[in-house]
Amino acid sequence: MADRRRLLSEWIQAVGMRSLRKTVLLAIVASVVLVVALLHSWPTRAYTTVDVWQRPGPAVERHLEERFPEPDHRSANIPYRVKESIAGLLARNGCVCEGESGGMNLPFAQLLFPRVSAHPMHTAFEASELEEMKKRRAKEYQGFQMRSQTPADMLIVAEANNPLQYPTQGMEVRPLKTILIPGLAVQDHPKELYIVNFTSTLGTLNVAAEVEGVKVKGDGEMHMTLTSSMLSNLNRQLQFVTYTNTLFHPSTADTVQFETEGHQAMFTIKVRHGVTPKLYNTGPKGEYNISALVTIATKTFMRYDKLQGLIDSVRKYYSTVTIVIADDSENPKTVSGPYIEHYIMPFGKGWFAGRNLAVSQVTTKYVLWVDDDFIFTANTKLEKLVDVLERTTLDLVGGAVREATGYTATYRQTISIEPGEEEGDCLHMRRGFHHIIQGFPNCVVTEGVINFFLARTDKIQQVGFDPRLARVAHLEFFIDGLGSLHVGSCDDVIVNHATKIKLPWVSQSESDKTYAKFRYPPASSDATHTKNGLLYFKNRFQCLTHN
Amino acid sequence: MADRRRLLSEWIQAVGMRSLRKTVLLAIVASVVLVVALLHSWPTRAYTTVDVWQRPGPAVERHLEERFPEPDHRSANIPYRVKESIAGLLARNGCVCEGESGGMNLPFAQLLFPRVSAHPMHTAFEASELEEMKKRRAKEYQGFQMRSQTPADMLIVAEANNPLQYPTQGMEVRPLKTILIPGLAVQDHPKELYIVNFTSTLGTLNVAAEVEGVKVKGDGEMHMTLTSSMLSNLNRQLQFVTYTNTLFHPSTADTVQFETEGHQAMFTIKVRHGVTPKLYNTGPKGEYNISALVTIATKTFMRYDKLQGLIDSVRKYYSTVTIVIADDSENPKTVSGPYIEHYIMPFGKGWFAGRNLAVSQVTTKYVLWVDDDFIFTANTKLEKLVDVLERTTLDLVGGAVREATGYTATYRQTISIEPGEEEGDCLHMRRGFHHIIQGFPNCVVTEGVINFFLARTDKIQQVGFDPRLARVAHLEFFIDGLGSLHVGSCDDVIVNHATKIKLPWVSQSESDKTYAKFRYPPASSDATHTKNGLLYFKNRFQCLTHN
Repeated sequence: MADRRRLLSEWIQAVGMRSLRKTVLLAIVASVVLVVALLHSWPTRAYTTVDVWQRPGPAVERHLEERFPEPDHRSANIPYRVKESIAGLLARNGCVCEGESGGMNLPFAQLLFPRVSAHPMHTAFEASELEEMKKRRAKEYQGFQMRSQTPADMLIVAEANNPLQYPTQGMEVRPLKTILIPGLAVQDHPKELYIVNFTSTLGTLNVAAEVEGVKVKGDGEMHMTLTSSMLSNLNRQLQFVTYTNTLFHPSTADTVQFETEGHQAMFTIKVRHGVTPKLYNTGPKGEYNISALVTIATKTFMRYDKLQGLIDSVRKYYSTVTIVIADDSENPKTVSGPYIEHYIMPFGKGWFAGRNLAVSQVTTKYVLWVDDDFIFTANTKLEKLVDVLERTTLDLVGGAVREATGYTATYRQTISIEPGEEEGDCLHMRRGFHHIIQGFPNCVVTEGVINFFLARTDKIQQVGFDPRLARVAHLEFFIDGLGSLHVGSCDDVIVNHATKIKLPWVSQSESDKTYAKFRYPPASSDATHTKNGLLYFKNRFQCLTHN
Repeated sequence: MADRRRLLSEWIQAVGMRSLRKTVLLAIVASVVLVVALLHSWPTRAYTTVDVWQRPGPAVERHLEERFPEPDHRSANIPYRVKESIAGLLARNGCVCEGESGGMNLPFAQLLFPRVSAHPMHTAFEASELEEMKKRRAKEYQGFQMRSQTPADMLIVAEANNPLQYPTQGMEVRPLKTILIPGLAVQDHPKELYIVNFTSTLGTLNVAAEVEGVKVKGDGEMHMTLTSSMLSNLNRQLQFVTYTNTLFHPSTADTVQFETEGHQAMFTIKVRHGVTPKLYNTGPKGEYNISALVTIATKTFMRYDKLQGLIDSVRKYYSTVTIVIADDSENPKTVSGPYIEHYIMPFGKGWFAGRNLAVSQVTTKYVLWVDDDFIFTANTKLEKLVDVLERTTLDLVGGAVREATGYTATYRQTISIEPGEEEGDCLHMRRGFHHIIQGFPNCVVTEGVINFFLARTDKIQQVGFDPRLARVAHLEFFIDGLGSLHVGSCDDVIVNHATKIKLPWVSQSESDKTYAKFRYPPASSDATHTKNGLLYFKNRFQCLTHN
């Protein structure tokens, strides 16, 4: 019994010891892990807050060019004579919705002498909803302005006889990074002490090297002062001044004040991520490999016969070019074949929705837009269009469309916007173009072209086709592209248009009848999704004039 | 007989006369029409040619900030001491592809102390094709630079002690329009004769009014001179100087030289169409009308069970919000219901192609991206995300995704690009964010977020999801958005993730198996369409570092 008791107590002791050691070991390991985890998650940096609320900033003086500057006391008495031919070109305060009046009322007058007509956009809305629409549009526009304006748009005037030398353009720093500020110097008359200071708002100032004989105060802060009794030492120090962005923003600008006694200067440093390129693989060198460079895009609706006609004609000349087809027909049929991509949409989703879908799927450098009732011929040389885009800075180049009658159209349109006030801007469209392109005598630059064009895929995807435009629309794409797209038009690349003329002895096919029914439907119930409603609300136009 | 002959001859005469008159009349009308048509088509303006060829322009000094400026003779002997903490922040000549070395090799080390690893991108290509790819990329990049750089990027330094006063920033004119140049003046010492001149390259100079005592020469040309013996008269005249753009370009800048004896200045006038707003109708005032403001977008592939789970969960909380579904499954099933838009794509077209398709169809102000295996809960309050975008300048705000285990992730990533030389740039991604957003304590600003986010439709369509990315990809969208998208992330709006964990007692469903087969396929044959191949070629990166 005693043996058993002794053995038992020895056993308990042994187990106890092991447990004790184990517990101690476990405790040590646990605390090490805890401490390590704590150290790791310990906030190693204090995060500052940033204010990104939509607040109205300093009012940007937009209408400088519209008013003659008020004379000050010195010039009040100096006589001048207005030069009407030039003064008349300056933008007015707001734009007026008027076309050309008068003119002959002969037959063919509109054809031979197209008059400009003006169309107010607010008529898209019932009188009862117009006031509400105006308010909503103004609110949305205000948000848009607050998001798109930066201090880099502000007017800055360099004062005369400023001993300060400084950079006025070209400085850029990536967010939270540091740059040397170039071109700083002081050319002052001899003094006992030279003092200059800098003030910034979205970052801090510093020096990358310390020059003998110059006292630096406030380095690493938003206000820095440099003092020296020797001008050349101060100027050497100024060559080492740095700016570091500390308040993050992906695309903005910091305005830096640079002062010395009695004089000041202001300059801007853009703060932004660089523009990341979006390059496309072009295939092997040599001749233009159309299959590697171009994708054909189209939208179809209830006319598979025309679509098949297009595909067959394309394949005669380009057997391996990918064709992307957006299809919102009611009972979609299968469209298949090598290098055919067929996309099925909800029934009647819409024209621009389909266009946007088609271009969203393109993976080649260029995309060729065609309507589903075009026919390729021997004159439809895509290589010519590719050549234009490969060698110029154009983003889009249109071709020509030949009707059954032989009449060939390029549908060139110039588009300009005249800024307006609260009522909105005025949109002006005129047939024609601006210049002929040097080296391409059959090509011109303009803003809008016919619906047969080759475009850079990244640019056309960036502009996009607004899916709110369900039915008839064309120039809206070019309006959305103003400022982004460099547009050209060549009349020597021609595609045929399967006939639209209702010849009396040809009975309309079933698909033609259904197509006609949808193609020209009654006005939509959502007023802001009509052509004029969108021009009014989305683009903030009050008026459209065209000839 | 004679009567008949007489009648006949009278008849012939009458017909002849009528024919003659008719012929004469027709001839007159025809010639009038011809003359009128000729007059109409007569070139009423001589079209000038424009040079839009891709030519390398003046080399933009990109790497100013990288080198310390060379001292001139005056400062060569002035001693200075480099401040390493600041000098080290300046961009180097090119970037180097290196991560963090060393560190403990304990278990959980990578978890507790995530080390930065560096990955060269050229490995996407076989050694045999790399040289060709480099050349092609360099050629495409050159074209991109020529299209995207403008004289407005050029460094300009204002000289000190210049008697000329002039605007250095903020001037803009629409293509082919005219503006008054503000802020021009001369503050010179007394002289017998004051002469100033202007030179421009993309337009002409003129005066909107003629001031007494000032002689104007070259008005309407690209070089204009103003001369006067009275300084105040000259300054009054300078208030009427105009610039007219004559060489059309949708977005460029003209550099104007402004000179007087012994001094010169340079300033830029931006020539471009204004930024056309793209506003969205928001629905009636009051509470956020989620159906009017938000469209839910997703892409699905071979897992209709998960998709239906998503739709059912959405409908519990938002019964009328439109859900757009891009579907590239092999044998697509019908997915229908009120406010459901189902788009069918070619089989396996790809992940980003589907994402691009879905967002291309959105017609509301905001789009909410969700994966097809998310589940909405009571914590998935879209109103909170809308509130952030309505009140801040953010373009996109991410939420949080909760796994079955309860672990919730926001996947915040900061992204920055360090410019490189011919080898390409370096892409740096780090977990984390930049600042907390004032007023939204649960939200921060960063560059990349998890795949559950609300975004402004116009901005997300503008950036787009590159359809070249067929399989696994995520941050590539945010890389493409750098500089365009202002990105935030809030951790208090949470969506659940249907479980991905392979629990041993749960057998994988058929659709799960097929999904797994495609979701992680072998590498594609087109090297530039792989993730690294695209980063190398499309975005011109040499290296990616991340932790």
